[in-house]
Amino acid sequence: MEPEDRAALPSPHNLPTGDFSLYPMEHQITEAVVVGRKVTLQWSDGRVSEFHALWLRDNCPCCVHHYTLEQTYEVSQAPDDLHPASVRLNKEGALVVDWAPEEHQSIFHPGWLRAYCSSAQSRTDRWVAPTLWDASTRERPDGFAWSEVCVDKTVELAWLKAIRDDACALLHGVPTNTEAVGEVADRIGVVRHTNFGGFFDVMIEGDPVSNSNTGIGLPPHTDLPTREYQPGLQLLHCMANSVEGGFSFLVDGFRVAEEIRQVDPRAFALLTTVPWDFANRSRSSDYRWRAPMIGLDADGHLFEIRAGNWLRGPLNAPFDLVEEMYAAYQLFEKTSHHERFQIHFRLEPGDCLIFDNRRALHARTAFETGSGHRHLRGCYLDRDELRSSIRLLERRERQDQVFSSFGSEKKAPRV
Amino acid sequence: MEPEDRAALPSPHNLPTGDFSLYPMEHQITEAVVVGRKVTLQWSDGRVSEFHALWLRDNCPCCVHHYTLEQTYEVSQAPDDLHPASVRLNKEGALVVDWAPEEHQSIFHPGWLRAYCSSAQSRTDRWVAPTLWDASTRERPDGFAWSEVCVDKTVELAWLKAIRDDACALLHGVPTNTEAVGEVADRIGVVRHTNFGGFFDVMIEGDPVSNSNTGIGLPPHTDLPTREYQPGLQLLHCMANSVEGGFSFLVDGFRVAEEIRQVDPRAFALLTTVPWDFANRSRSSDYRWRAPMIGLDADGHLFEIRAGNWLRGPLNAPFDLVEEMYAAYQLFEKTSHHERFQIHFRLEPGDCLIFDNRRALHARTAFETGSGHRHLRGCYLDRDELRSSIRLLERRERQDQVFSSFGSEKKAPRV
Repeated sequence: MEPEDRAALPSPHNLPTGDFSLYPMEHQITEAVVVGRKVTLQWSDGRVSEFHALWLRDNCPCCVHHYTLEQTYEVSQAPDDLHPASVRLNKEGALVVDWAPEEHQSIFHPGWLRAYCSSAQSRTDRWVAPTLWDASTRERPDGFAWSEVCVDKTVELAWLKAIRDDACALLHGVPTNTEAVGEVADRIGVVRHTNFGGFFDVMIEGDPVSNSNTGIGLPPHTDLPTREYQPGLQLLHCMANSVEGGFSFLVDGFRVAEEIRQVDPRAFALLTTVPWDFANRSRSSDYRWRAPMIGLDADGHLFEIRAGNWLRGPLNAPFDLVEEMYAAYQLFEKTSHHERFQIHFRLEPGDCLIFDNRRALHARTAFETGSGHRHLRGCYLDRDELRSSIRLLERRERQDQVFSSFGSEKKAPRV
Repeated sequence: MEPEDRAALPSPHNLPTGDFSLYPMEHQITEAVVVGRKVTLQWSDGRVSEFHALWLRDNCPCCVHHYTLEQTYEVSQAPDDLHPASVRLNKEGALVVDWAPEEHQSIFHPGWLRAYCSSAQSRTDRWVAPTLWDASTRERPDGFAWSEVCVDKTVELAWLKAIRDDACALLHGVPTNTEAVGEVADRIGVVRHTNFGGFFDVMIEGDPVSNSNTGIGLPPHTDLPTREYQPGLQLLHCMANSVEGGFSFLVDGFRVAEEIRQVDPRAFALLTTVPWDFANRSRSSDYRWRAPMIGLDADGHLFEIRAGNWLRGPLNAPFDLVEEMYAAYQLFEKTSHHERFQIHFRLEPGDCLIFDNRRALHARTAFETGSGHRHLRGCYLDRDELRSSIRLLERRERQDQVFSSFGSEKKAPRV
């Protein structure tokens, strides 16, 4: 939010935080102590935060460009002996730090400090775990009405969070014109262009560039595992589907990964550490990438799945690992091909399926090419866009809460 | 290349390989032996390749869709006791495998087999090491004439390889119109769109969305480290540069990383394993990502750099690591800010600088906003695009070699 909007609020809400967000103040700082280069805060709920002098100085909320709010302080230029000369709580409960030998004072918003508390508990609390599913816990993606998403920020946020947490969501009532899928995408963020263009059509083609443009069934796979960074989200907007067959189905790749972790820890270890080679076959491009089929992030959380039998290149691994790697691959394929892990549904005209292409494997049953017409129009976006949009809506939600809690007549600016 | 073009060549060049490439045959297979599920090949230069039955069956070159060449065989459905019933070399030196219990025969092109040899030596040989540089070994990016890149495939390939291996190249003579940078980008691949659009202009703005659109100096940084997948390449096309100051400079981030590895192994270890938080400040977006500043790939090779003092968010690390993390950060910043690692040059109208945004940190000196006009027009692409284009040109080069070595009158198709 604009600094001038924030200034209209009572203290300490009006304190600058170095960004455009407002921070809730559910807890108060009860004590601030400095020992050497460490500032320790005691909170009203008993939690303890420890902040290092360099960390605090680095994040001083006033050392930013006045308009862009981008940081202007260069912590790499800080004096070697930089330390807090004194710390105190002001009468609104904010932390005031006087620096030495730099003559500078920083005032930190308590809600902001709490949001970045580095205690193990706070760091764990900030992790949003995905909700895994299989055929026993989910029948189809959660549905949302496009007309409501467009006018109701609460519905829009619920829709975006479903995509983030469940890795899929189904919009109904999206107009069946060629521009509509782009309008849905714009609501999330920037479209990821590929060699197939910004938008692509999944329909029968005489000279198919890939198996998807034939009538054959497609087993569970992720799209473009041949790229270093697989597209995060895929939109498939159903324009027509009158063929016999051609059902869609999804598999939660993280659920499959957890199953493998349970039944065969050695296979899980191989699939999460030894890269497979992925490669597209094409007259006009030659994309290749090496990565484990199951990706873990730095904290060991499930992060992404790469899968697609026909998008693999020759495995490039030491011979001694090859047999085990194939056994692990076969286990992954057999698990993801098992009905127990699949949710089947039929896309009807006006439906727009959105799924996390790096977690939810998608597939379709074969269809008779002469039995009718099937046309899906799609595009890709990245997870970054989804996350940014969720944060903006949450930012706005928080502004509304804070402004209304103070009965301010000033409306929060639209995001 | 098209299967029918390949068929015009003498054997074994005419053998299908399951892809669109031709493979050199610098070495011959002298012996093929099968023991259980392992096929061992002896080569004329003494190298030994070991292939597992599942690996060979998985890559059978005839088990592909006739037009797309995408794989149709599902190795996850292979019989448990699949094995080579017999192997032999045919009279052209290709490997022939008869399978059991499946009744199928696979014929493997010897050049293809050699290209995928899994011996430690072959796997090492396939790694293309980057060429690191600093001010003592490079004055400026290698230059190429745009007019030559457009008409000469050899020059085009050299230009693309310079971007890949040196992380930078400078085109001269690019017309100073607004479309030109897009034409340069199209030569490499698909433009990566961001919240700044497909193309962006670096020039003075009244309401700057970032520090880059002011006259202040920008220290060495990568663009968009706040995204999970930072753009791989950046193009900056100089349309005008008549200001005082405003020099460009580049730093080889991999060279900086190697320096740190040498002088402070503990700092290197922290920078390659503990994630920093990156965050943009914006009214209309909220991108954040956590990643180590120096990224290593699965094989331990330098892979990417993330840097930008004003694009960092608050570090989210256990308190005990914070002081060391800041010391490591300061070392990185001080090293990359040192002239010893910087190459300075001035972009002139018609120049188009292309650099690997995930390796080469870019920067500019401050300039007087009233002293003239400075306008760079830019865009992003991903490394995937560069690599694909290089492979296509190499594919074509190889076709030309193979066709000409047989005096074929048939021209290789243009890529």
